Amino acid sequence: MITPLATWIDGQPASMLSAHDRGLQYGDGVFETIACRAGRMRFLALHLERLQRGLRQLQIRFGALEDLRAELERAAAQAPSCALVKVIVTRGDAAARGYAPAGTERARRVVTLWADSAPEPAVRERGVAVRYATLRLGRNPALAGIKHLNRLEVVLARAEWTDPAIFEALLTDSAGHIVSGTMSNVFIVREQTLLTPPVDQCGVAGVIRSVVLREAAASGLRPQVTALAPRDLQTAEEAFLTNSRIGLLPISQLGARALPVGHQTLALAARVEQLDA
Amino acid sequence: MITPLATWIDGQPASMLSAHDRGLQYGDGVFETIACRAGRMRFLALHLERLQRGLRQLQIRFGALEDLRAELERAAAQAPSCALVKVIVTRGDAAARGYAPAGTERARRVVTLWADSAPEPAVRERGVAVRYATLRLGRNPALAGIKHLNRLEVVLARAEWTDPAIFEALLTDSAGHIVSGTMSNVFIVREQTLLTPPVDQCGVAGVIRSVVLREAAASGLRPQVTALAPRDLQTAEEAFLTNSRIGLLPISQLGARALPVGHQTLALAARVEQLDA
Repeated sequence: MITPLATWIDGQPASMLSAHDRGLQYGDGVFETIACRAGRMRFLALHLERLQRGLRQLQIRFGALEDLRAELERAAAQAPSCALVKVIVTRGDAAARGYAPAGTERARRVVTLWADSAPEPAVRERGVAVRYATLRLGRNPALAGIKHLNRLEVVLARAEWTDPAIFEALLTDSAGHIVSGTMSNVFIVREQTLLTPPVDQCGVAGVIRSVVLREAAASGLRPQVTALAPRDLQTAEEAFLTNSRIGLLPISQLGARALPVGHQTLALAARVEQLDA
Repeated sequence: MITPLATWIDGQPASMLSAHDRGLQYGDGVFETIACRAGRMRFLALHLERLQRGLRQLQIRFGALEDLRAELERAAAQAPSCALVKVIVTRGDAAARGYAPAGTERARRVVTLWADSAPEPAVRERGVAVRYATLRLGRNPALAGIKHLNRLEVVLARAEWTDPAIFEALLTDSAGHIVSGTMSNVFIVREQTLLTPPVDQCGVAGVIRSVVLREAAASGLRPQVTALAPRDLQTAEEAFLTNSRIGLLPISQLGARALPVGHQTLALAARVEQLDA
């Protein structure tokens, strides 16, 4: 296995947890992956907001948010100049057998610090190749948008290819709509409009996705959250992926189609790169 | 938390595992819950078959099946007369960061032994009350049928009620079809036909479900796997739930409707009870 730089469980250096944690038993928890650059956690407030949204959605009581925030800031201070921090919060050890939460569980947090390398500037300039996944995401509004630990769909979608020349796969849902990549959100630019699919039936509401939607207007683009079909991507002027690690990356190849790396994408990428740096 | 009688990880007494296990990170694994009665694991061969089917579906290589079988038989020998064994097999520790399985992970197994109590004979005779869940299951053929660790949908459905008089909730999928309970499969009897929904879009192919389908003919019933709508349950002559712990339990109350505890259900329950005892 690969070794992280450090792991803390409930604030203590540790790397083992109870086999009776509901995170393992049922995927009963949420997570965040946060980029750490030059000792600062990027968009930490947005990550913690989404974490709390997910915990509320799963009815997990988590009283240690301020402890977690302080812990993340301490981790950032000891991190190399380019690092990633993964935070998992589970409902904690099972308080009873079976699916029903007892309500008396004590949430558990796992924080892991990883060395990382940012995408090369050349990759950002020439863009990445993207395929379509065969797997289709199931639709469930009760779990959509939040970053929960039930990730088998994207594990299977990511296992569909091993060619290192392919950076990501786009997923459709059972209704045939484009949702996202396995680990990223997707945007297209068309006639000064910036479009991305809703994440109210499946998919994750990415932190960088929310930042890009917020910043679009300042870049002269009308942001629009709307259903997208594969044909919309075939006619897009520009297309790009977002996530916390990569920021924005232009899509230069989508299935059989080559796309230009557009100036709108590069301008937005540069703008987001400057924020909260 | 509640304490099991014993926990083994990869065959050794242990109750802690790595926080980097993909079972925790992504729910990347499968599980079985097996009833143990008078020192024997009930339907062990069927449980191990389904476990293997799930592992194949998730492309998890697991070379320790015979070790696991021997371990389960040893656990049964030391179990109280009524016990439950839960087996989890995960893909093991992450061999790389991210969703992609590296292919070099080493699967991990967690076996937990619990004291249990069988449903009282009186409960079996008078049946149980069942409600409808509000949550609808997402449809995904890639994960349907197997007993994987992504269980948030049923955790949320089970959290919808706390009234101890309600034993179970029935779930529909996003297309409005009845799928199963949160922890059980569902059957109805109508005109000498025994009907249960398919589990090819969502739900779990229960071991007792497969036994009941196999045994139906010997009880004079035609088994049929077919789409069921809530109205089919409203007009059922008999209805019952199945899982490994409860065997068969008649449904005597479904939402607002009272159902008779029928002789077909009781005859099938007695037949299954006798098998592999």
